Amino acid sequence: MSKSFQINEYVDGILTSNITYVGRAITLVESTKPEHQEQAQQIINQLLKHSVSSFRLGITGVPGVGKSTFIESFGLEVVNRGHKLAVLAIDPSSQKSKGSILGDKTRMEQLSIHPKAFIRPSPSAGSLGGVTRKTKESIIICEAAGFDYIIVETVGVGQSETAVHQLTDFFLLLMLAGAGDELQGIKRGIMEMADGMVITKADGSNIEKAKHAKTEYARALHLFPPTDSLWKPQVLTCSSTEQTGIKEVYDMIEKYKHHTLNNRFFEHKRTSQNVQWLHQTIHDELIERFYSNSKVKTELIKMEKQLLQQNVNPYQLAMDLLKKIS
Amino acid sequence: MSKSFQINEYVDGILTSNITYVGRAITLVESTKPEHQEQAQQIINQLLKHSVSSFRLGITGVPGVGKSTFIESFGLEVVNRGHKLAVLAIDPSSQKSKGSILGDKTRMEQLSIHPKAFIRPSPSAGSLGGVTRKTKESIIICEAAGFDYIIVETVGVGQSETAVHQLTDFFLLLMLAGAGDELQGIKRGIMEMADGMVITKADGSNIEKAKHAKTEYARALHLFPPTDSLWKPQVLTCSSTEQTGIKEVYDMIEKYKHHTLNNRFFEHKRTSQNVQWLHQTIHDELIERFYSNSKVKTELIKMEKQLLQQNVNPYQLAMDLLKKIS
Repeated sequence: MSKSFQINEYVDGILTSNITYVGRAITLVESTKPEHQEQAQQIINQLLKHSVSSFRLGITGVPGVGKSTFIESFGLEVVNRGHKLAVLAIDPSSQKSKGSILGDKTRMEQLSIHPKAFIRPSPSAGSLGGVTRKTKESIIICEAAGFDYIIVETVGVGQSETAVHQLTDFFLLLMLAGAGDELQGIKRGIMEMADGMVITKADGSNIEKAKHAKTEYARALHLFPPTDSLWKPQVLTCSSTEQTGIKEVYDMIEKYKHHTLNNRFFEHKRTSQNVQWLHQTIHDELIERFYSNSKVKTELIKMEKQLLQQNVNPYQLAMDLLKKIS
Repeated sequence: MSKSFQINEYVDGILTSNITYVGRAITLVESTKPEHQEQAQQIINQLLKHSVSSFRLGITGVPGVGKSTFIESFGLEVVNRGHKLAVLAIDPSSQKSKGSILGDKTRMEQLSIHPKAFIRPSPSAGSLGGVTRKTKESIIICEAAGFDYIIVETVGVGQSETAVHQLTDFFLLLMLAGAGDELQGIKRGIMEMADGMVITKADGSNIEKAKHAKTEYARALHLFPPTDSLWKPQVLTCSSTEQTGIKEVYDMIEKYKHHTLNNRFFEHKRTSQNVQWLHQTIHDELIERFYSNSKVKTELIKMEKQLLQQNVNPYQLAMDLLKKIS
């Protein structure tokens, strides 16, 4: 960082919607340096005192589903409806070079230069717990700066979908028509987490296939147990290139928002997410501190080798290790 | 316990298939007394030195789906095919009285008196981690006693399905026809864990409804991403009272067994389960030890109250707590 600011400079800058401060505060959040972490926490603590109302949308889908072009089209719909939009990404596996980070932004040509939109590319790789926390804190910074519509996107290939689900109000799954090999990338269990599904690329010769897929998925969703919000997940189709179906996605999400604000699930979910965040931090820290012990590391390598034979007791190994350490 | 045995008495008794020792060893496993736990671990360690081959089947379904009658019919099929069968239950929420434990057994009239079957009712309530470990250890005891087919049943309403999935080779989901309110009890995500589904009570006027449900579920399963085993989950119907479809369920599971033995997924899954068990024990113990601290308990009550307001930072609370304790 070329210049360092005081905590109150950051806080005032963010609260007056100064994008420079937003970006730099997120950089602090993403930094691994302890002094930056310390500053970041102080900023977050201050920002949380200013309550804001916002909507947080999680979007996931396999690579190739057209996430960036969907977010470009959908994001323009969001800003045209009067919102200020922030797009954040969560990708614990990310090892992207600076080059491909820019690539992401250029795929959102209009949105990336829109005055009411803020796009922040994926931070560098880290543990899922760490990346989730950083995303959560980035959300708080953006919201304090007046962004009232937050999109958190994730690559639908790992554990990060669950994290996004825990960070957001609505979980949207993008799918390709043709339920064949394209599904390889999606983890089992993700479909049942979705509050809504959108079949992308419903254009040209693909329209019929997309409609058929919509029917099939709607039928499958109907067989799932009810959601905690009592909302019935819906399936839509859209084309980002032809700009069809985008408004309908926006409207579906609005309907969900009203549904959950009315039955107070919205508030309930946000509080649960905070309680979960408290406990998750405790769990992650306890485990991280234990596993970062060099004696533990050496012992675990030995133990995992032993476990290749079926005739050792994993419970006994674990208890022995805990006894050695504490 | 009226009499206590030496470790080697237990081990010899179990290895010579003496049911009295099997039952008593499981009682030790289930005991909360530290000295019993110590003995149980020593027994398990000895038993694990004797390698056995077995098949572990997890069965789940909501109350009312007819789990006990299914296990009665299916279990008789298993023993008639030449296996020795042990039926164990996992139910962390169980607060059953002695009376209803016996009730379970009487619903398996023929199986409970069959010389080649051993039925062990649910142990009393405990934490999920604890109950899972006890079930895992009971499996090892039964297998060492020559039971080569293990059924672990669970009530499909909580977290225990995931535990059963981690304990077994095949995960079978029992479902009722009519995908409406009956599903209320099943947790979202469970369907996608199933290696096979069986629609129960496919008899009398219910046959058509069951067939229809089978088609619907088969279609839905087809939309799911492939399983790690590359096995395609199947849907069948059966009637436990009319004894129809039971053989087909057995054959489906045999097909899975051969499929996964051939592609070595079977072995791979067992090893992964052991590695997972090691880490799970470490996690559970670290967290349990932390949360059982009385200072932690008091602080957490305060913190959860604070979190009802949105303007506190759960991460900061967690770090503060960890600092206070360590």
